[in-house]
Amino acid sequence: MRIQAQEMQKTFEEILIGRSVPSDIAQIAARNFTQTSLDGVYSHGVNRFPRLIEYLDKGVVNPQGRPECVARVGNLERWDGRMGLGNVNATLAMDRACDLAAENGMGLVAIANTNHWMRAGAYGWQAANRGCIALCWTNTMPNMPAWGGKEPKLGNNPLVVAIPQSDGNHVVLDCAMSQFAYGKIEMARMQSQQLPVPGGWDTKGNITTDPAEIERSQRVLPIGYWKGSGLSLVLDLVAAILSGGNTVTDVGTRYTEEVGLSQVMLAIDPSHMNTKAMTDGIIQRVLEDIQSSTPAQPGESIRYPGQREKKVRAENQAQGIPVLDEVWEKICQLKG
Amino acid sequence: MRIQAQEMQKTFEEILIGRSVPSDIAQIAARNFTQTSLDGVYSHGVNRFPRLIEYLDKGVVNPQGRPECVARVGNLERWDGRMGLGNVNATLAMDRACDLAAENGMGLVAIANTNHWMRAGAYGWQAANRGCIALCWTNTMPNMPAWGGKEPKLGNNPLVVAIPQSDGNHVVLDCAMSQFAYGKIEMARMQSQQLPVPGGWDTKGNITTDPAEIERSQRVLPIGYWKGSGLSLVLDLVAAILSGGNTVTDVGTRYTEEVGLSQVMLAIDPSHMNTKAMTDGIIQRVLEDIQSSTPAQPGESIRYPGQREKKVRAENQAQGIPVLDEVWEKICQLKG
Repeated sequence: MRIQAQEMQKTFEEILIGRSVPSDIAQIAARNFTQTSLDGVYSHGVNRFPRLIEYLDKGVVNPQGRPECVARVGNLERWDGRMGLGNVNATLAMDRACDLAAENGMGLVAIANTNHWMRAGAYGWQAANRGCIALCWTNTMPNMPAWGGKEPKLGNNPLVVAIPQSDGNHVVLDCAMSQFAYGKIEMARMQSQQLPVPGGWDTKGNITTDPAEIERSQRVLPIGYWKGSGLSLVLDLVAAILSGGNTVTDVGTRYTEEVGLSQVMLAIDPSHMNTKAMTDGIIQRVLEDIQSSTPAQPGESIRYPGQREKKVRAENQAQGIPVLDEVWEKICQLKG
Repeated sequence: MRIQAQEMQKTFEEILIGRSVPSDIAQIAARNFTQTSLDGVYSHGVNRFPRLIEYLDKGVVNPQGRPECVARVGNLERWDGRMGLGNVNATLAMDRACDLAAENGMGLVAIANTNHWMRAGAYGWQAANRGCIALCWTNTMPNMPAWGGKEPKLGNNPLVVAIPQSDGNHVVLDCAMSQFAYGKIEMARMQSQQLPVPGGWDTKGNITTDPAEIERSQRVLPIGYWKGSGLSLVLDLVAAILSGGNTVTDVGTRYTEEVGLSQVMLAIDPSHMNTKAMTDGIIQRVLEDIQSSTPAQPGESIRYPGQREKKVRAENQAQGIPVLDEVWEKICQLKG
């Protein structure tokens, strides 16, 4: 079935308010889940919504947690997320980073004690819509081994880099430090497919494209092998040090769920130094050059990060957001 | 042979001054090349020095180019590198970013019209020695295909993330966006070895571990396949937009050598918010956890980025820096 964005957002909002979430927080959360679904990232949009309700019902996410600035120096702020809704905390933190950038060139908000921010790319799009370049990342629970080790000790710590174009066709990279998300590996296994490139280890300790073997070993591969392992580690350290919050190690030892995360939102406003035409010109020159490559597979085109979203968004806006019947039914029952 | 660090530095300095490099610039450049060699990164230290002289002699690097701040907003500065010595420009830019961070929490210097900064990690160590967290990166000439394309259109754009520990054992990640440097691929070919993991494409368009085939196709693999391709692109865009300088595309079309680069240096001083003991505690907790992993290969240990340098540095400080006789001879002839 397809649900219109407005109806979806209203439904989410109503359910959240029914869970003691204040209406302003409910509205931001509902908008984030809906926007993510509009952009075609259903796994972190409509399909993920029931898990937030489960976490609210369990008491591991605080429905009334409101993020607070606990320290500031220059344009660098440290926030405490009060264990509130992760996508709301992240939206407010990025908004503040953009405010600081609009005033003074750049702003950074590091937030501790927050929860899953859902779709990482959302905060890149948010900043780019405000004309800002953004770098942001989150840590996660331990879900990837350190290079040379067996047990999951690192997070996949998604990193986002966004660059604004004045026509709204922003370049937005949303890149976890694992080669594949667990959801992608599960889907390949259910469809009896091999992964297109190696995604982890089998139970004998060999690198493999077999999704079932990776699920058995629970050892996913970092991007670039040792390089992604290092990147994941440093992103975690910077997030925990700047926010004063939990590291991946801490999340793994202090909680049974993936909660209490640390995040960094950095926004830089290039309009202090460049006209919009200058920034657009740089981006266009590079994208045109890349897209003029000879395709490695004849007939295929070279895409840039964020290019796909625009088409899906327009389609879902016009026709409604596709949702599995049973998912929407389950969500409607949460209205209780 | 082994050359004492002090002698090496004096030799470099003398040669540079003989090429019309002002003595203060010569000193910084000589120190950078020597320190890099001390840390065991000979490819970007002593072995690379003759190429700088070649570029000075050709006139593509300006011996008297002195970087200049051309715009400032808040703690964000844009510099013009005046086509001067790349490792000197980068040292001065990172130093300024650290000054800004010491004052106000964070500082960013984006520099255009600069040249090869030699060892990327040097600027991470530099910032960490001043107690700062650093993120910095450079663009390069086109040397890697965009995902889905054949020709080199992207740079390998090394990214550095550094985190300071008060005992000097900093965590410093130095990570190019290609899986292997061309130098590593060449060395594997000369030793008739396969790469440990796939590093590029063969001439038939298949992904391969064969270094000779990759050299023939000139198609190296980005870390994480499509992910590293996206990362490389966004790093280039941010560097060019913030510095107002050349993109990878521009470097490839405007110059025959790898010159006229754009770089970003971001420093954040955590001491405004954390005591040193707090920051050290976070790092130690994570490193201990990671290093407690069961080794994937029995008997091997799990290393963190930057761990290896310390041992090499102490050894080379005590015994002198190892240099091939013919390399040192060639360098001494440059004194002429």
